[in-house]
Amino acid sequence: MSALSEGLTQIVIPLASLVGIGFALLQWFLVSRVKLLSQDSSNGYKQKLIESDEEEEGINNLEISIKCTEIQHAISVGATSFLFTEYKYLGIFMCVFGAIIFLFLGSVKGFSTKSEPCTYSQGNTCKPALANAFFSTIAFLLGALTSVLSGYLGMKIATYANARTTLEARKGVGKAFITAFRSGAVMGFLLAANGLLVLYVSINLFKLYYGDDWEGLYESITGYGLGGSSMALFGRVGGGIYTKAADVGADLVGKVERNIPEDDPRNPAVIADNVGDNVGDIAGMGSDLFGSYAESSCAALFVASISSFGISHEFTAMSYPLLISSMGIVVCLITTLFATDLFEIKKVSDIEPSLKRQLLISTVLMTAGIAVVSFFALPSEFTLFNFGTEKEVKNWHLFFCVAIGLWAGLIIGYTTEYYTSNAYSPVQDVADACRTGAATNVIFGLALGYKSVIIPIFAIAIAIYVSFSLAAMYGIAVAALGMLSTIATGLAIDAYGPISDNAGGIAEMAGMSHKIRERTDALDAAGNTTAAIGKGFAIGSAALVSLALFGAYVSRAGIKTVDVLTPKAFIGLIVGAMLPYWFSAMTMKSVGSAALKMVEEVRRQFNTIPGLMEGRVKPDYANCVKISTDASLREMIPPGALVMLTPLIVGTLFGVETLAGVLAGALVSGVQVAVSASNTGGAWDNAKKYIEAGVSEHAKSLGPKGSECHKAAVIGDTIGDPLKDTSGPSLNILIKLMAVESLVFAPFFAAHGGFLFKFI
Amino acid sequence: MSALSEGLTQIVIPLASLVGIGFALLQWFLVSRVKLLSQDSSNGYKQKLIESDEEEEGINNLEISIKCTEIQHAISVGATSFLFTEYKYLGIFMCVFGAIIFLFLGSVKGFSTKSEPCTYSQGNTCKPALANAFFSTIAFLLGALTSVLSGYLGMKIATYANARTTLEARKGVGKAFITAFRSGAVMGFLLAANGLLVLYVSINLFKLYYGDDWEGLYESITGYGLGGSSMALFGRVGGGIYTKAADVGADLVGKVERNIPEDDPRNPAVIADNVGDNVGDIAGMGSDLFGSYAESSCAALFVASISSFGISHEFTAMSYPLLISSMGIVVCLITTLFATDLFEIKKVSDIEPSLKRQLLISTVLMTAGIAVVSFFALPSEFTLFNFGTEKEVKNWHLFFCVAIGLWAGLIIGYTTEYYTSNAYSPVQDVADACRTGAATNVIFGLALGYKSVIIPIFAIAIAIYVSFSLAAMYGIAVAALGMLSTIATGLAIDAYGPISDNAGGIAEMAGMSHKIRERTDALDAAGNTTAAIGKGFAIGSAALVSLALFGAYVSRAGIKTVDVLTPKAFIGLIVGAMLPYWFSAMTMKSVGSAALKMVEEVRRQFNTIPGLMEGRVKPDYANCVKISTDASLREMIPPGALVMLTPLIVGTLFGVETLAGVLAGALVSGVQVAVSASNTGGAWDNAKKYIEAGVSEHAKSLGPKGSECHKAAVIGDTIGDPLKDTSGPSLNILIKLMAVESLVFAPFFAAHGGFLFKFI
Repeated sequence: MSALSEGLTQIVIPLASLVGIGFALLQWFLVSRVKLLSQDSSNGYKQKLIESDEEEEGINNLEISIKCTEIQHAISVGATSFLFTEYKYLGIFMCVFGAIIFLFLGSVKGFSTKSEPCTYSQGNTCKPALANAFFSTIAFLLGALTSVLSGYLGMKIATYANARTTLEARKGVGKAFITAFRSGAVMGFLLAANGLLVLYVSINLFKLYYGDDWEGLYESITGYGLGGSSMALFGRVGGGIYTKAADVGADLVGKVERNIPEDDPRNPAVIADNVGDNVGDIAGMGSDLFGSYAESSCAALFVASISSFGISHEFTAMSYPLLISSMGIVVCLITTLFATDLFEIKKVSDIEPSLKRQLLISTVLMTAGIAVVSFFALPSEFTLFNFGTEKEVKNWHLFFCVAIGLWAGLIIGYTTEYYTSNAYSPVQDVADACRTGAATNVIFGLALGYKSVIIPIFAIAIAIYVSFSLAAMYGIAVAALGMLSTIATGLAIDAYGPISDNAGGIAEMAGMSHKIRERTDALDAAGNTTAAIGKGFAIGSAALVSLALFGAYVSRAGIKTVDVLTPKAFIGLIVGAMLPYWFSAMTMKSVGSAALKMVEEVRRQFNTIPGLMEGRVKPDYANCVKISTDASLREMIPPGALVMLTPLIVGTLFGVETLAGVLAGALVSGVQVAVSASNTGGAWDNAKKYIEAGVSEHAKSLGPKGSECHKAAVIGDTIGDPLKDTSGPSLNILIKLMAVESLVFAPFFAAHGGFLFKFI
Repeated sequence: MSALSEGLTQIVIPLASLVGIGFALLQWFLVSRVKLLSQDSSNGYKQKLIESDEEEEGINNLEISIKCTEIQHAISVGATSFLFTEYKYLGIFMCVFGAIIFLFLGSVKGFSTKSEPCTYSQGNTCKPALANAFFSTIAFLLGALTSVLSGYLGMKIATYANARTTLEARKGVGKAFITAFRSGAVMGFLLAANGLLVLYVSINLFKLYYGDDWEGLYESITGYGLGGSSMALFGRVGGGIYTKAADVGADLVGKVERNIPEDDPRNPAVIADNVGDNVGDIAGMGSDLFGSYAESSCAALFVASISSFGISHEFTAMSYPLLISSMGIVVCLITTLFATDLFEIKKVSDIEPSLKRQLLISTVLMTAGIAVVSFFALPSEFTLFNFGTEKEVKNWHLFFCVAIGLWAGLIIGYTTEYYTSNAYSPVQDVADACRTGAATNVIFGLALGYKSVIIPIFAIAIAIYVSFSLAAMYGIAVAALGMLSTIATGLAIDAYGPISDNAGGIAEMAGMSHKIRERTDALDAAGNTTAAIGKGFAIGSAALVSLALFGAYVSRAGIKTVDVLTPKAFIGLIVGAMLPYWFSAMTMKSVGSAALKMVEEVRRQFNTIPGLMEGRVKPDYANCVKISTDASLREMIPPGALVMLTPLIVGTLFGVETLAGVLAGALVSGVQVAVSASNTGGAWDNAKKYIEAGVSEHAKSLGPKGSECHKAAVIGDTIGDPLKDTSGPSLNILIKLMAVESLVFAPFFAAHGGFLFKFI
């Protein structure tokens, strides 16, 4: 028996969630103390208190504050309007797909309302299949709504914080950093706590109906993961296309043709570009990581429910995944204090170490936290089921499983940093290759991305081997959870990036001085690296989550082995390995086409609006926002359909073995494509920033802005945009989503799948 | 029993080989009737007969003929010297690796010289393990030597034909086409016939010792495939780095910086570039396809030897793979006559259809040929072994297996053509994306490459499913053989490309008129597409071959299932899927670094040699040749080591299951990377040619040479060079070679492997 009683568990989990939410609100309050001008709708602008105890440049410049407020407002309006339009489509999708889930799962036993004997917990009676269909659908909708809420809240906070960061940058880089970082923390804690709370409440509510049928209870809860992930897919793809169409379009005309700086207010696509950062990098990433978190929890809970905890009804041990997440919130809370209160950023070179320190601190503290949870929440010894065989497991085995996932995440994060930060030789080599032009820059960048997969893959492989050897598929599920246990900190440093990026954009547009812009650029460069680290985490955890879901799917579909020597599984494997390419082809092409349209519009405005180039007339920002919105909504459908339909088609026509092959193939191939695409893009971006910043002798010899080397670097950066912000990060959703969808539909495929092979 | 007697089989196979060799010599004779000036070493130049019955421009221009001869001589000397240097290294490698094979295999049973009971043919006695080690080593050396010979002969013919093609181009595009095509045919037939003959003779010689122990006989013959493929690896990688370092280096300074045409004699890297075409695209590709051919034959023979043919000693049925290849030679001979004698090329637009027709004709004829061989060589019904179970197979089942491989090859070829020829919309879209600069060109090109994998993967998957369902792993092996059965035609149209490319280079360097250059450019553009088709075949067949070898390996290692749900196999799968990236990172970076060195040298020459730009002084070609040679020999070692050592390390430390995972992972991931890399590169090359040729209104609006669009296209072309000619084509060797190496070492791994896991 666990040392922690069921009653205490029922208190600890919601308490941790509420602490997390409270901490997020506190951070939000602290950010809100940076005063903007508030827009009085009836009467123009009214000045609020502006802190005036420091005498730095422009601190009392009312005009600049007004401009910043205006720009923030425009970005916020654009982002909100895009998200609401997107949610309209997603609402329709949710209804349709909810109906599909209900119909497919309901039809497994012909919509029977009779109770059935349980599959695993032999001798007991479980709830009818129709109930499972109904509750799976409800869980799906809950997951989808939580995901939408996560994305929306993230965007709101980011657009609330960007101009505040700009204004704080006038007082120094330290103040600006704190503002951006606190805002990131708001998002991180809200998401982590919110996800945990909704899951916890759902389980308890579902339990009112299911009672002792935990098999059915946790089976239907997997719908939560599916809901979270399917929203994340559209969020990532739609947002990714939006942001990169605007970014590429703005850069191609602005930087390359017209030779005006990035984020120059004369560029008609500049507002769309900033909106894109919020809907793509913030809302998209938020729902992506929420999806990973929901799925790894669901996978762990499902596997546990058919093992000893579930069968012997030990609620505390069963809630181990949720307790790990609760501990994660507490650990991240302490970690955040190190950045916001214990250490102070005094100069630009402190920023990146400070962010990296966050990762290290949270990992070290969490390791102790895992030990505590494993000791108190788990019985000292228990039984797990592993594809029909039983496995004796000790509580310290699970400690190692979670801990290895956690540390593998740190290794992936640091490797990503090494390959994408311009403080190290890989990016500097790429920058150096710009001497001979864009072609060698691209060749070196691609090679860098390919090379950067080696260490992450070994880290993932070792984590898989150890956790599987210790605790079978449950071990892998909790290893994924371990990697995601510090999600609040991960998201905080990840969200910090786009907020700083926006802050820089606002500084440029508001015409603030070069000094301010330099500060926001420094924040942004560190943000590029942390964004890459965040993507590394997202991909690493996605790999583990998918494998855990894959294992759960195989259990649920009743397959004993997935033998690549059978033709059914092998053709699944090779076709599955092809899917990431098909998907990337779609998303890359979408960004390309949307960017071409944007380029035409921006060129048209520069050519037909007199006085635009001279800054006398404002461009038509709204038209560019509209182009990005329309393109992203239209273009997200085919890749979305590919991902959502593949498991349904393969499962129905070719059966469970081929689908198992597809999942394994997509997983092992998708991870490589995703990691290399993200890192290549991140490296090109920072190679460009390296030349622009000109910090070292070497960097100076390549620059300055506008040199031939710099032009070559800009081309690399533009190519990297869709790789790192659209294709790459969408791929981890592809592999997770196909796995969780297969898991949810497994009973249907097992009963009615493989139609085509049966026919032949 | 087979309808064909053993005696007739023993006549038919060598006869077909000799017919093939004879036909190749006839083609060579026909090419040699185009007279060059021969260089008289003592006395300058002496004029030979120049055909003078036609009155076209420059036909009697002695100076041009002298120049062409000189250039051809320089290219030939450069290529020969590189190959001999390369072979010195390869000689050392062969000795070392031969020793490793002997030691590893000999140690399986402690170098015992005692006969053993057979593994499959129960009740019989087989030869001792030491004999197998010895004969495997001999077979390895034979395969290696045949591969080296194939590459060398190909290079000799190509450098013999290039200037002749240039001179014929003065008389019209048809004459030039015939010369280039006949030369390609020489190579195709020599390789196919030579490979078959050596294999046939080896089997008969080995049989003198092995007698009735066919298990041991065909086990040792697998060394032939390993030898062929390991030479091919170094040939492809070394040659690939050589050619692209020179090509990229020449283009970056010549076309981009100095604005001089491609192949301009003032460019110091121009000879190295042309040498590269011969050592990379010709010698490298020749040994690559020879490797595929040798491996698929060996895989089929090995699987057959442990099935009913082998156990009941039916020589004719056992020789089915060799008989298919014999039929292939005859079919290709007839096919070639269609191009050289039955149809005439009258205008530029006839070239590509004529080459495509070759593929179609050979496929249709070969389908009938397969039916004949299957009917006469096979018993109407027989038994195959499939991982411990028996499978009843009919002769028409095998007909379908070979035929589906053959037709899958045609589909892959035609798909490749669709995605890489500038006659279709995909390449035209890429060209159109150049309007907005190099970045969108690259984004669209990458998307095109990703998209182009879809149909080939489905074709491969269907071929695998059908052939495996009909005849288990033997079915897959003969499907691979089916795809390669028309190898003589495939190689002919493939080798035609680089010969035409060289011919164009010689025309430019010899200062021939614009008209001649246009003709050779047209030949070359068609050659780019056929080169891409050839790569498509190479990759498709490599996928099937690797799978067959993988199956043979699994049989020989005594594994019953490769279950991805076991951690040992799964970590192998994910690490295996990473290897193509690691390998590509190495080769791309190698090309990049070597190209940077070349750029510096070319710049140095332009800057320091007075009168070079004005064409008054000759550049120092030899220095550039030396840079390419040194770089390629040095840089081919790390990727070569990665491929050769991975199976040894994984098998020894982690055991046969993990190695099986690695092979499957590398196969399913490598195919995608290889196909997308080859097609992306081919598409960029032809998008550039599309803009340069300016045939349609659309193309004219993007051009002409030197326009902004064209510059963007040149950047894409340069990036594509290492993708399509180094990384991409080397990857199929990676997947094949690791599989065949694992097969050869399987007894050792099964007996002593998995050291690390045993230790833990």
